[in-house]
Amino acid sequence: MSTPTSRRVGRPRAQERPADGLEPRDEVLAAAAELFTTRGYTATSTRTIAERAGLRQASLYHYFDGKEAILAELLEGTVRPSREVARALVSRTEAAPEARLWALCHSDAALLCGGPHNLGALYLLPEVQTGRFAAFHRIRSELKSCYAELLAATEPGAALGADDLVLRADLLFGLTESVILIRRADPAREPSTLAVATADAALRVAGVPQRSLTRLRREGQGLLAAQA
Amino acid sequence: MSTPTSRRVGRPRAQERPADGLEPRDEVLAAAAELFTTRGYTATSTRTIAERAGLRQASLYHYFDGKEAILAELLEGTVRPSREVARALVSRTEAAPEARLWALCHSDAALLCGGPHNLGALYLLPEVQTGRFAAFHRIRSELKSCYAELLAATEPGAALGADDLVLRADLLFGLTESVILIRRADPAREPSTLAVATADAALRVAGVPQRSLTRLRREGQGLLAAQA
Repeated sequence: MSTPTSRRVGRPRAQERPADGLEPRDEVLAAAAELFTTRGYTATSTRTIAERAGLRQASLYHYFDGKEAILAELLEGTVRPSREVARALVSRTEAAPEARLWALCHSDAALLCGGPHNLGALYLLPEVQTGRFAAFHRIRSELKSCYAELLAATEPGAALGADDLVLRADLLFGLTESVILIRRADPAREPSTLAVATADAALRVAGVPQRSLTRLRREGQGLLAAQA
Repeated sequence: MSTPTSRRVGRPRAQERPADGLEPRDEVLAAAAELFTTRGYTATSTRTIAERAGLRQASLYHYFDGKEAILAELLEGTVRPSREVARALVSRTEAAPEARLWALCHSDAALLCGGPHNLGALYLLPEVQTGRFAAFHRIRSELKSCYAELLAATEPGAALGADDLVLRADLLFGLTESVILIRRADPAREPSTLAVATADAALRVAGVPQRSLTRLRREGQGLLAAQA
């Protein structure tokens, strides 16, 4: 076996550190994101991640206590920004709940279909069912609760019974997350077109009539522009 | 290492063959379905599958030429029955296309959220992107084309341009497949309620007005009952 400094996996590197300007911790996350989504989580070792990141394996352990911690950080990064957007939208009670729901679905779908790697594909790993990923599941659940809260405030949502509201919110959340599957089948898909179409479809699933869609989309876009 | 006959992984077995009445080939598929979805594909060997199925490893190779062939068969089993339903529904031109689309979404969602294991979770394995799984991708693509064909025949679908039709069909297909993600998050979810709600949501995404939903759902259920 050769040493980490004499051998590189994947992209050859002239220097110890890649020249893309990332901090070592972010370099580890970027390398792991690529390896987990292309080679698979089980098939990737911390040694391979360290080599791809241009670090010694011991240096990787300075930032993360192992492969699970890296996966947990990547997964939390797919839901934490959307939860922050969602909380801000829930509190903006002066705007129409339908427009806020559009903005949430758009923002969440854009996060999931943007970025260089399809990290949402990692949700379905059997390992993610374990307690090590409790923080990810908690944040994702809080995000889903914001969907339910905004839906309940819409005119068609207010007419639903409690069980139907939960089910409808799950479908809205599932529709948004299905961009993960669409992106997997067609990686060349243009993310912003898909995010707009997903948010429109979410309002349809919520029960918003066709005639109100154009106005609500415009209001939703305005809310996102104001938050940016 | 002990021999396959002296050691069992998981459920202990008193006999060489499990007593659940399956043929050896189906026993292999059932064992692999459980292991791939709970332990992971990479972490599962053909030796472990054979042991769980109550077979010698050499006997497993009598039915499948390796782990990839088993995964391919499992994946094809998640789309082939729906493609057959879809083709039959496309040809039933005497029925309303909206009702046929409802029936397709219901049937497909019920297949994906029924069965003992969430096999759709395997779609996102990096390995499935390789040419070994071309037949699965072809059947899935044919199934998606049936969604697009039925959507195009609906009144709101007929008003869409070509690009919007493809995008809308992808969203319908993604919504149906999102039961995979919903089931992963909540394995106790009642499959038939979820399948009905998904099919209703699909008609909403297709642009069918709320007032027609109850009638079209009844017609869709009638079509499925006639096919069963």
